[in-house]
Amino acid sequence: MNGSNGEERVVHEVAMVVPKRALEEEGDCVEFLVTELKKRGMVVDRVVGLADEFLKVAAPLETLGNAAEELHIRKPTRLGIDLPFEMQGSEAFIRQPDGSLFSWFERFRCYQHLIYGIQMKLDGREFCWVAGESLLRRLESEGVIKQMFPLHDEFKRKELLQTWALNWWNFTNQPIDQIYSYFGAKIGVYFSFLGMYTQWLIFPALLGFIVQMVDFGSLQFLALPIFFVSTILWAALFLQFWKRKNAALLARWQINCLVGPSQGYRFLGMEWSSLPFPKELIKNLGNERSKEKEAYQRYEWFAYRKRFRNDVLVIMSIICLQLPFELAYAHIFEIITSDIIKYVLTAIYLLIIQYLTRLGGKVSVKLINREINESVEYRANSLIYKVFGLYFMQTYIGIFYHVLLHRNFMTLRQVLIQRLIISQVFWTLMDGSLPYLKYSYRKYRARTKKKMEDGSSTGKIQIASRVEKEYFKPTYSASIGVELEDGLFDDSLELALQFGMIMMFACAFPLAFALAAVSNVMEIRTNALKLLVTLRRPLPRAAATIGAWLNIWQFLVVMSICTNSVLLVCLYDQEGKWKIEPGLAAILIMEHVLLLLKFGLSRLVPEEPAWVRASRVKNVTQAQDMYCKQLLRSISGELASLTKPEQEQQQDYERF
Amino acid sequence: MNGSNGEERVVHEVAMVVPKRALEEEGDCVEFLVTELKKRGMVVDRVVGLADEFLKVAAPLETLGNAAEELHIRKPTRLGIDLPFEMQGSEAFIRQPDGSLFSWFERFRCYQHLIYGIQMKLDGREFCWVAGESLLRRLESEGVIKQMFPLHDEFKRKELLQTWALNWWNFTNQPIDQIYSYFGAKIGVYFSFLGMYTQWLIFPALLGFIVQMVDFGSLQFLALPIFFVSTILWAALFLQFWKRKNAALLARWQINCLVGPSQGYRFLGMEWSSLPFPKELIKNLGNERSKEKEAYQRYEWFAYRKRFRNDVLVIMSIICLQLPFELAYAHIFEIITSDIIKYVLTAIYLLIIQYLTRLGGKVSVKLINREINESVEYRANSLIYKVFGLYFMQTYIGIFYHVLLHRNFMTLRQVLIQRLIISQVFWTLMDGSLPYLKYSYRKYRARTKKKMEDGSSTGKIQIASRVEKEYFKPTYSASIGVELEDGLFDDSLELALQFGMIMMFACAFPLAFALAAVSNVMEIRTNALKLLVTLRRPLPRAAATIGAWLNIWQFLVVMSICTNSVLLVCLYDQEGKWKIEPGLAAILIMEHVLLLLKFGLSRLVPEEPAWVRASRVKNVTQAQDMYCKQLLRSISGELASLTKPEQEQQQDYERF
Repeated sequence: MNGSNGEERVVHEVAMVVPKRALEEEGDCVEFLVTELKKRGMVVDRVVGLADEFLKVAAPLETLGNAAEELHIRKPTRLGIDLPFEMQGSEAFIRQPDGSLFSWFERFRCYQHLIYGIQMKLDGREFCWVAGESLLRRLESEGVIKQMFPLHDEFKRKELLQTWALNWWNFTNQPIDQIYSYFGAKIGVYFSFLGMYTQWLIFPALLGFIVQMVDFGSLQFLALPIFFVSTILWAALFLQFWKRKNAALLARWQINCLVGPSQGYRFLGMEWSSLPFPKELIKNLGNERSKEKEAYQRYEWFAYRKRFRNDVLVIMSIICLQLPFELAYAHIFEIITSDIIKYVLTAIYLLIIQYLTRLGGKVSVKLINREINESVEYRANSLIYKVFGLYFMQTYIGIFYHVLLHRNFMTLRQVLIQRLIISQVFWTLMDGSLPYLKYSYRKYRARTKKKMEDGSSTGKIQIASRVEKEYFKPTYSASIGVELEDGLFDDSLELALQFGMIMMFACAFPLAFALAAVSNVMEIRTNALKLLVTLRRPLPRAAATIGAWLNIWQFLVVMSICTNSVLLVCLYDQEGKWKIEPGLAAILIMEHVLLLLKFGLSRLVPEEPAWVRASRVKNVTQAQDMYCKQLLRSISGELASLTKPEQEQQQDYERF
Repeated sequence: MNGSNGEERVVHEVAMVVPKRALEEEGDCVEFLVTELKKRGMVVDRVVGLADEFLKVAAPLETLGNAAEELHIRKPTRLGIDLPFEMQGSEAFIRQPDGSLFSWFERFRCYQHLIYGIQMKLDGREFCWVAGESLLRRLESEGVIKQMFPLHDEFKRKELLQTWALNWWNFTNQPIDQIYSYFGAKIGVYFSFLGMYTQWLIFPALLGFIVQMVDFGSLQFLALPIFFVSTILWAALFLQFWKRKNAALLARWQINCLVGPSQGYRFLGMEWSSLPFPKELIKNLGNERSKEKEAYQRYEWFAYRKRFRNDVLVIMSIICLQLPFELAYAHIFEIITSDIIKYVLTAIYLLIIQYLTRLGGKVSVKLINREINESVEYRANSLIYKVFGLYFMQTYIGIFYHVLLHRNFMTLRQVLIQRLIISQVFWTLMDGSLPYLKYSYRKYRARTKKKMEDGSSTGKIQIASRVEKEYFKPTYSASIGVELEDGLFDDSLELALQFGMIMMFACAFPLAFALAAVSNVMEIRTNALKLLVTLRRPLPRAAATIGAWLNIWQFLVVMSICTNSVLLVCLYDQEGKWKIEPGLAAILIMEHVLLLLKFGLSRLVPEEPAWVRASRVKNVTQAQDMYCKQLLRSISGELASLTKPEQEQQQDYERF
């Protein structure tokens, strides 16, 4: 599908699964689907598997272009503004870094549109089809077609496997551009972040190693404070330079995204919807603009109140339910002397916590679905904050308890090492083995089914088709809230929790940075392997930044300033001489809460009223849509001649 | 000049001053200038004054339009993008809220262009004119023409005087739209901010009054902490809601400005220049884009280092020179018992401080002029930060000293009242009397000169012409750095210092909020009177927000969290029981410094690399310029029919 190197190579990018049972019963309606797909210009390949049959679909550039035109996909043009795609003016649109016209995200949207867009023209046949209904949806609901999923591009997958996943000696270097064009912007941005973070980790890792190992003699008491200050500065600089790198990435990928907190997120190629203002309200108001504004304000306030109530609910339940539970566990763990009971307790605790976390995630998803949020990404961010709150309590509160109760750095270090290693092992196992187990189980089930059907119990049945193997692989999905997030959620959560662990207790255990660096170098490659080998190709998602995670990292840096100060106080006050009056402590706590509130408030109140944004977006898109056709046609002809040399130049762009 | 109400009324918006001496000597070259001005389509009116003659200039819409076209002034279009102005496509451009095509800022730029654009076609005459030289610049350098300044529009001035400056009972309500269209966006935004601030002040003023006056019995000890927390929340919310209001204002004024820290500032209608990258560097590099990027990065780093060195210099000199001086004064003031010596000391101190502040301002301006900054607004912000640092030390350090030395709230309150009243009186006097004195002096000098020339010493010579009266009025200029800032700098500085005073010592003197509210209600009207009556019409400046001042206010809120905590500690620890170990104190100070650094660092490192921004701006403007003509022509015809109804709708927009 790519203009540059694959015009002759037909790449099937999407597959549909047809159970054999359905095939026997309603064979001709699958046949009908295939002919309809071919009519719409797609290349369809039928593959017979063990228990199911597969339809592999490919679409030539022209078919995709027509779909994009029907979808009015907005793409950046050489004019500097985003315009809905038109085939006739295709030269005016900026191409991807790899030379193709559509990104993988856009291609997948086109496939979806093409496949789900097949409508019934005739009523009747064996089902009672309603004219105008989507054929595929009907077939799905009838069980004739099980699923539609994106397929790996074997050629590119192997290339990436060589240059990325198995290229261990590259350490933090990754072919980000290829990752972007194969997996989409969201995964590309994530791996770029992971790579940069690991690279930057080298400095505090070295420093931590020195602080831990070298004895500075009479200046020893200065070592930890200096280490503390430098890690905080390092973290703040890292996050700031990440923003720069993110901007550079977007510039290289020609994603027309404005950097800045209010516009950090934006759907690439999707219509950016403002607050989903109910259309009926506008209609009732007629044309009066001032009234429309008022309605918007009322609606924004309504949506805000709803969100606020949810947030308060989540925060209160974390503080009132989770906090006592965690503290109770930590306390009982301290009291008990018998090792056996400790293990039993921990096992019970882990079981309960698993259940509670899943419950919390589900409640969060439910709450968010009832909120009125501006876009899908906004909802996703809301989920991230809520779930992170849960995990934050779960991961760190026990350690805090340790610190304040014991004031013993050696046991704290032990706890930290345990947690770091356990979490590393746990996540690696989860990432590595769980998908493989799932895959094996599905394969096994399919085989036994096949054997049952064939009646013969001898000989091993080989799975020949690549598409069936992929079908058996599990999807890249989050452990909570499948519909809002994909597997990146878990990976980002893991990374944020690790960052919090090493930053918040930096003074207690400077070596942790080195551990984290080693673990992240491994993480890059294992995640790459996971994406390329053990999992299905993920659905492409639209995102231009790491979004809410950046705010969480910023928050963790601020928290780590406070926690490390407490750690230093504990460290230098081992004799317990530094008494702090309750009044003074109360004022200090109030001050810190206010400081946090001050910086949190800027997130609570959006900088732009909803009606301003709505009117801006509306004005721009209306006017642009009105004139885009004549504009594009007049421009693209002239631009066609310029296209080729400029493209070559763009590929010269470097990484940062 | 306004399409709606003044097509028949000729409004002279600009005046030039010709000294009579010059008129006698080179009369015909002024005559020549007048004919040239008329040739370019302007309406010129010659007025004879006491010592000088005045050329009042007006330009019809068409002349302005042509000038705007020559200047390639970028204006927002209905298309949603900014395009260079074209007369033929004028219907496609969004009109001002008052219905005129150009804002006052754009009109003034056109005037400047028209007047300074007159070039000599012939060599010779009595001066050795070089063909192609600007006539007016030549005449200015020869002393034939003294000055060019904008004129008040008497009709609108009187209207504003009625609806704004003398409308005392409106309290904080102001006709912001009229202010915007008469004075430009910068002054409009400032007065909108002042009005909103005063309005919001009512809440803490009432609360402060209650806290000060009511005795809560056994809960009295809670009153001040609660007041503290509510003022902080109030301030944070106010600043956040101000951003919203600013966005709403810009939407109403059709200023196409993106809100967000990285793009908060933008030249309205001016070419937005990125880092002023030397053109030669690009030429040497040829066409290679990757090298251009590298050069940009090197250049950005070079400019950054220079700025950083300057900042460090300023901060160090404030800490090492100003801080000891202020502390020495505060200390000596405390030691001395004799009242007379105290007054003498204060007088000497005030003299020295006046000199030092002016010196500091001049040094800052010099430093900034040697910096490489992205735009004029960026330089202005840099100046604001530096000068505010100076004033911050000067205003508050003495008070801090008081707090820490005496821990006596009554004397602190006295000091605060003194300072608030003194500064209010001082600024009112400066604002009210100084311009009038200047005006009177100039009038007197002109009169005596006239008398000298006429030889008669009897009778009072009346100044008949309005334009001469305006010429005698002083300009709206900042007390430091005339070329970078106008009088708004002083007004904003006064407001920020007041805000800092009432916020940072809120717990010591809750009544201060009420004082500030009263003083600001007066401030609005006196400032309005100053602008409309005692001063010349200010040069319009381009700004869409209050810029750096917002950051300073945010900083003051954070500072006030810390200072009020210290105040509360002092208040509740009057017996001196709460001892704080030096180690603990050191850690606390380190923590607070780090917290401030964390939030400061995001300003130090820009979020977008210079090359990204440069390439984005370049790409957009290049492509837009290429196709703007054909675009505008095809669009404006169709839009012309839509124009009228939409305009009326826009005037329905309300204030917030």
